[in-house]
Amino acid sequence: MLKIGVLGCGRIGVMHAANIAAHGRAALAGLYDVNGAAADALGAKLGAKVFNTAEAMITSPDVDTVLIATSTATHSDYIEAAIAAGKAVLCEKPIDLDLQRVNLCQSRIKDTKLPVMIGFVRRFDAGHRAARQAMLDGEIGTLHQVVITSRDPGMAPDAYMQVSGGIFRDMTIHDFDLARYMLGEEVETVTATGSRLVNPTLMARLGDYDSVVVTMTTSSGKQAVIINSRQALYGYDQRLELFGDKGMVISENRRAHNMTRHLAGGTNTAAPLLDFFIERYADAFNAEIGSFVDAVEGKAAVEVGFDDGRLALVLAEAAMKSVAEARTVRVSEIG
Amino acid sequence: MLKIGVLGCGRIGVMHAANIAAHGRAALAGLYDVNGAAADALGAKLGAKVFNTAEAMITSPDVDTVLIATSTATHSDYIEAAIAAGKAVLCEKPIDLDLQRVNLCQSRIKDTKLPVMIGFVRRFDAGHRAARQAMLDGEIGTLHQVVITSRDPGMAPDAYMQVSGGIFRDMTIHDFDLARYMLGEEVETVTATGSRLVNPTLMARLGDYDSVVVTMTTSSGKQAVIINSRQALYGYDQRLELFGDKGMVISENRRAHNMTRHLAGGTNTAAPLLDFFIERYADAFNAEIGSFVDAVEGKAAVEVGFDDGRLALVLAEAAMKSVAEARTVRVSEIG
Amino acid sequence: MLKIGVLGCGRIGVMHAANIAAHGRAALAGLYDVNGAAADALGAKLGAKVFNTAEAMITSPDVDTVLIATSTATHSDYIEAAIAAGKAVLCEKPIDLDLQRVNLCQSRIKDTKLPVMIGFVRRFDAGHRAARQAMLDGEIGTLHQVVITSRDPGMAPDAYMQVSGGIFRDMTIHDFDLARYMLGEEVETVTATGSRLVNPTLMARLGDYDSVVVTMTTSSGKQAVIINSRQALYGYDQRLELFGDKGMVISENRRAHNMTRHLAGGTNTAAPLLDFFIERYADAFNAEIGSFVDAVEGKAAVEVGFDDGRLALVLAEAAMKSVAEARTVRVSEIG
Amino acid sequence: MLKIGVLGCGRIGVMHAANIAAHGRAALAGLYDVNGAAADALGAKLGAKVFNTAEAMITSPDVDTVLIATSTATHSDYIEAAIAAGKAVLCEKPIDLDLQRVNLCQSRIKDTKLPVMIGFVRRFDAGHRAARQAMLDGEIGTLHQVVITSRDPGMAPDAYMQVSGGIFRDMTIHDFDLARYMLGEEVETVTATGSRLVNPTLMARLGDYDSVVVTMTTSSGKQAVIINSRQALYGYDQRLELFGDKGMVISENRRAHNMTRHLAGGTNTAAPLLDFFIERYADAFNAEIGSFVDAVEGKAAVEVGFDDGRLALVLAEAAMKSVAEARTVRVSEIG
Repeated sequence: MLKIGVLGCGRIGVMHAANIAAHGRAALAGLYDVNGAAADALGAKLGAKVFNTAEAMITSPDVDTVLIATSTATHSDYIEAAIAAGKAVLCEKPIDLDLQRVNLCQSRIKDTKLPVMIGFVRRFDAGHRAARQAMLDGEIGTLHQVVITSRDPGMAPDAYMQVSGGIFRDMTIHDFDLARYMLGEEVETVTATGSRLVNPTLMARLGDYDSVVVTMTTSSGKQAVIINSRQALYGYDQRLELFGDKGMVISENRRAHNMTRHLAGGTNTAAPLLDFFIERYADAFNAEIGSFVDAVEGKAAVEVGFDDGRLALVLAEAAMKSVAEARTVRVSEIG
Repeated sequence: MLKIGVLGCGRIGVMHAANIAAHGRAALAGLYDVNGAAADALGAKLGAKVFNTAEAMITSPDVDTVLIATSTATHSDYIEAAIAAGKAVLCEKPIDLDLQRVNLCQSRIKDTKLPVMIGFVRRFDAGHRAARQAMLDGEIGTLHQVVITSRDPGMAPDAYMQVSGGIFRDMTIHDFDLARYMLGEEVETVTATGSRLVNPTLMARLGDYDSVVVTMTTSSGKQAVIINSRQALYGYDQRLELFGDKGMVISENRRAHNMTRHLAGGTNTAAPLLDFFIERYADAFNAEIGSFVDAVEGKAAVEVGFDDGRLALVLAEAAMKSVAEARTVRVSEIG
Repeated sequence: MLKIGVLGCGRIGVMHAANIAAHGRAALAGLYDVNGAAADALGAKLGAKVFNTAEAMITSPDVDTVLIATSTATHSDYIEAAIAAGKAVLCEKPIDLDLQRVNLCQSRIKDTKLPVMIGFVRRFDAGHRAARQAMLDGEIGTLHQVVITSRDPGMAPDAYMQVSGGIFRDMTIHDFDLARYMLGEEVETVTATGSRLVNPTLMARLGDYDSVVVTMTTSSGKQAVIINSRQALYGYDQRLELFGDKGMVISENRRAHNMTRHLAGGTNTAAPLLDFFIERYADAFNAEIGSFVDAVEGKAAVEVGFDDGRLALVLAEAAMKSVAEARTVRVSEIG
Repeated sequence: MLKIGVLGCGRIGVMHAANIAAHGRAALAGLYDVNGAAADALGAKLGAKVFNTAEAMITSPDVDTVLIATSTATHSDYIEAAIAAGKAVLCEKPIDLDLQRVNLCQSRIKDTKLPVMIGFVRRFDAGHRAARQAMLDGEIGTLHQVVITSRDPGMAPDAYMQVSGGIFRDMTIHDFDLARYMLGEEVETVTATGSRLVNPTLMARLGDYDSVVVTMTTSSGKQAVIINSRQALYGYDQRLELFGDKGMVISENRRAHNMTRHLAGGTNTAAPLLDFFIERYADAFNAEIGSFVDAVEGKAAVEVGFDDGRLALVLAEAAMKSVAEARTVRVSEIG
C-alpha cells in the first residue's frame, strides 16, 4: 500500500482522495487544505488524518508520496518541497502558468531520481488509450493526422476565467499533452487562431479567447488539429481521431448508458454525454493513481513526466504567440 | 430490352411502371387498370401504351412478360391467363388469400417452363442480402436464430383492413418469406400469439390482430422469431438479425441521410427512418425487376418462385391456427 | 453504515463483498463459505471477519443483515435462518430450483416484516432503468411489446450444466423477471420453444435446451418476447426493447469504451461487448446493494421481493411445460 | 423539359449525361467530346445526338443549355462561348486553375442575365443540406465552428497529379465552397499547413502537399477547419460538423446499407463507406441537375454562382500563400 497524502481538498482533491481511499494498492495517508474546514470534512468522511500545514504533511513519516491538487500558483513550491523531503509527486496540471517558474522548478529538482508525475488525465482514458494502442500495434499504419475535439459544457465563472491563464494554458493544455502523447514525436510548429464567440465581452476584457483552433506539425510532417470551445450545450465533447496511412481510429464521446429513444420527433436519440470531467474521466483518474503507484514502486516508468508538463506549457505559449502575430510559430522560438 | 406490361396502376403499379421505364434492361410495353383514367394518366406520363382490357395486354404481341399489381383477388386469374398466353409473370404478393385457390392455380400452371416470380421485395434489400451473403460466406457459422422486427408506421384505413385477409396473410407474409429465405430449410412448426393493442375495437370486430409474435422452428431446430405491429409512430421499422454459432449480422433500419443532432435536449438524434415501403425498399423494388429480367433471359433461376408464394401463405394459415388453438402447429397440418 | 454479512465466497460472493466493503453506506461485517480457505483469503484481502459456520454469522450481533450467495440448494434454508434471527436478507437468484421448496419457504417467512430481497440484478442496470423510466414518464405511450435478447458468451462447464436446473430456471429466469418488471402487469400466458443447437448431445442427454424463445402475454394483451442462447461468440449480448403506441426505447449493449476502427477491412468496428455479467452489470450490482440498504433503512420499498423471485420461477415452470406440451400454458396452471 | 447538351464524356460527363437522360424535367440534347469515340459510345447508349465540335453543340438550336464537363483548361472558353450563344451554363469545378483567367471570364460575361452555375456538388448532399437547414432553423443557435473532414480513398495517378493545380485548387476547393456555404458570411483570413505524408517524393517534386489543414475565420470570428488527405484506405471520408451556441449537427459518412457484423474479432463492423464521389454524391449530382433546371426556369436563384466558383479559388490561393509564407493570409490580399 502506497501511502499518499493529498494537498488540496477542492473538487479535484476530493475526487483524488476518494479514489486513493478505495484503491487496492494505495492508502490515503493525509489531507491538507488552506481551507481547514474543507480538509476536516473530507478527513472525517474518509477517515484520513488532517494536517495543519502543507509542510507538516509533506514531511510526515506517515506520508510516502504527495498528490498536489492545490491552486496552480502553489504547484511548483509544493513540488520542490516534496522532492526536498524525498517524496515522489503526482501534481495536477498545469505546473505553473509562468514558463519561467516551471523552468526554475525543473532546474531545482533536476537531480532527483524520485518520480514526478503530472496529472494529464486524458492519457489514461480507456478509449484514448485503446486508440493509441491500436496505432502502436500498427493497425492504422504510420500516423498522419491527429484530430482532437475538446469542448467544455459551459464557461467557468468569471472569477475563475480571470485567473485561468487563458484558454491555451488552462484548457487547451490538456489537448497539447494528448496530441504530444499520440504524435510520438516532438511538435515543431504551432499555428493557432482564436475567436470570441461565447462571451465576446468578457473575452475582450481579458484578452482571452473562448473558441480556438490549433494546428501543429512535427519534424516528419505529422499534423495535429485541436478544436476547442468553452461552451457546448449538448455536453462535454471529448473526441480523438488518429488517422494513418492504413486506417483511422476514433475515440468517441461516452454516455452513462446506451439507452436510445425512437419517437415521432426523432430517432436514435441517445443519453446525454458524460458531463463534466469528473464523470467523463472517472475511470481515467483512477487509472492515473494506479500508474503513479506503478512508477513509485518501480514497476513502470513515469507515464507523464515533469518535462511533459513543461512542454505542454511551451506549446500553449507558442499558440498565444501565433494568435498574437498571426503566423506560424516554431516551438524553438519559445523557451 | 425485355418488354413488360403492367397490370394495375395503383400505388405499387405506378412505382413498378416507373422503375421499368427507367430500367436499363427493360421497357414498359403496356399498362392496364380497371380504372381506365388511372392507366391513361400513367401512360401519358411515361409514354406507354394503355390497353382497354387485361386480356388485350396479356395477349398483345408487344408484351413479352406481365407484371401483376392488381387487387389480390385477381392475381391467380391473371397468372393463369399470362401462362396460357405464353408470358412469364412477376406477381405481387400474395398470390391469393385463399390457399385452395393458390393450390388450384399451381395445378393449372404446373406444366409451364415459364418463369413465375412472386414479388417478395425484401429479399432484394441490399442490407438483408448482405446479411444473408455474410451467412452464406460462413461468417456467422451455422445459423441458429433469425429475428425479424417488422412494424408498419401506421394502420391502413379501415376499408383496407376489412379486405386485407388478416395480419398474417397481409403483413406477416413478407416476414414468413424473409424468414424462409434466411433459414435455408423448411419450417416445421409455427407458434404464434396475437394481441389487439393498436385498435382493439376494430381488431375484435374483424377477428384480427394488430400485434403478433410468431416463432418458427425447422427440422434441425433453427428458430425464427417475427415481431409485428401495425403501428410504429417513429416510422417503418424493418430489422433483420441472423445469429449463428460464430457470430451475428444485423440489417438495421435505414435513413435518408446520416445527419445527427447533438442538442441540450438529446444527443445523437438521427434522421427519421425511411418510410414507407415505397421509400424503404426503393432500391429493392428496382433490383427485383432486374432479377425478373435475369430469370426471363435465362441468366439466373427465379429467385422467388410460385411455391415460395404458396409456402408463405401456408405459414400464415399455420399461424392463424396456432393463435386460434393456442398451440404449436406443425406445417404438415396445413395443406 | 449497514453491516452486511456475506454467505458464500464464490465468484458472485467475492464481488458482492468487495462492493459492500467499498460502499458508502454499507460495511462488510463478516464472511462465510463452506470452503473455509476461500473465506479466509477474501477476509484477509478485505479486512473482514470470517465465521466458521453460517449459523454463527447469521446470528452474530455484528451482522445486521445477510447477503446469500451460496449454492442454490441452500438459499431457502439460509433465508429462513436469517429471518428467524431477525435479519433482513438479500438473496441471489434463484430462490430454489424447486417451486414447492420456494412455496414452503414463503409460507415459513410469511409473517416477517423484514425486507427479503432477491438479486435480480438486471433491474438495476442504468440503461434498462432509463428505458423503464422513459416508459413510466409516458415517452413511449402505452407499452405494447417487450423484446429481451439475452445470450451468454459461452456455455458453462458441463458440471455446472448438470445442476443448473435447465435453461429456463437458470438463465431465462433473469429475463422472466426483467419482463415482469417492464410489463407492469402479471403474465397470463407463456408459450415457449426450445432447441438444441450449441451442444445438441449434452442438451439431449440433460433433457435441456441451449436456444429458446419465449413469448408471454398479459391480461391486457401486452406481449413480451425473450430470445436466449447459451453461446454468443461476439460476447455477452444483453438488449432490451420497449415498444409502445407512441414510440420505442432500446437499452443497447455496452462496451468498455467507444473506440472504433475504420480500416480497409471494415469500418466502424467497435470494442467488444462488456463480458461477462460481472463486468456488464458491475454498476448494477453496486446499485443493487444501495437499493437493499434503502429497503433496510426504510427509505424505499423492497424493489425485488420474495414473490418476484417466486413468480419468475413460476414462469420458468410454465415455459418448461409449454415446450413439453407444444402449447400455450396459462400461468394459472402452475402453482 | 430542359434540353441540356453535355460537353465532355469522361467519367463525370458520362454520369451527368445519364442523370440528365433519366431526369424527369431535363432531356439530353447532345454530346461532344474531343475524343469522338467516347462521345459516340455514350450517344449510342443513351440515344443522344453527338456533335462534331463543341461550337456546333453550343450553337445548336436543339440545345437550350450547356453542361461543361471537359478538362479544366477549357472551362472558361466554353462558358464564354455558351453565354455568347445565349445559353445558360452548368460548369464543373474549378472554373480555371488561374485566378486571372477566371477574373477575365467574369468580366467578359458580366452583363449576362443567363444562369451560370458551378458544380460544387456537395452543397446538394442530403445530409449536408439537412445540417445546414437545421442551422438555418435555429436548432444550433449561432454558428461558431465548421469542421470539414474530407479525405479521398486514394491518390490519383501521377499524370493527373501533375496537372491538378495542387491540392488546394483541386481537392480542397470543394471544401472551401462547402465552408463558405455553411458559414453564411465571407471568409476574412486563411491559415493553412501542408504536409507530404502519403507520397513525399512526388509531392516534393511537384511542390504540392497530400495532407493539409486549413483554418479560416470570418469577420464575426466564426471558424472553419478543413482536414484533407489524399488517401484514406478505409474509403471516401466525407464529414461535416456545424457547431453553434445551442448545439451541433453532424453529417456523417454514408454506406450502401446498414448491415453490421458482430463477430469474435470485432463488433458493430459496418459496411464500407460509399466510395468514391460518383457513388457518395450520386443523389447530390442528381439534385444538382434539378437545381440547375430550377434556375434556368426561373423558379429559384442560382444556388452556386460564378462568383462562388471564383471565391473558392481565391481561398485556395490564400491557402497556398499561407503555407508558403507560414502565416495567416487575409483574403483581401488575394485578387
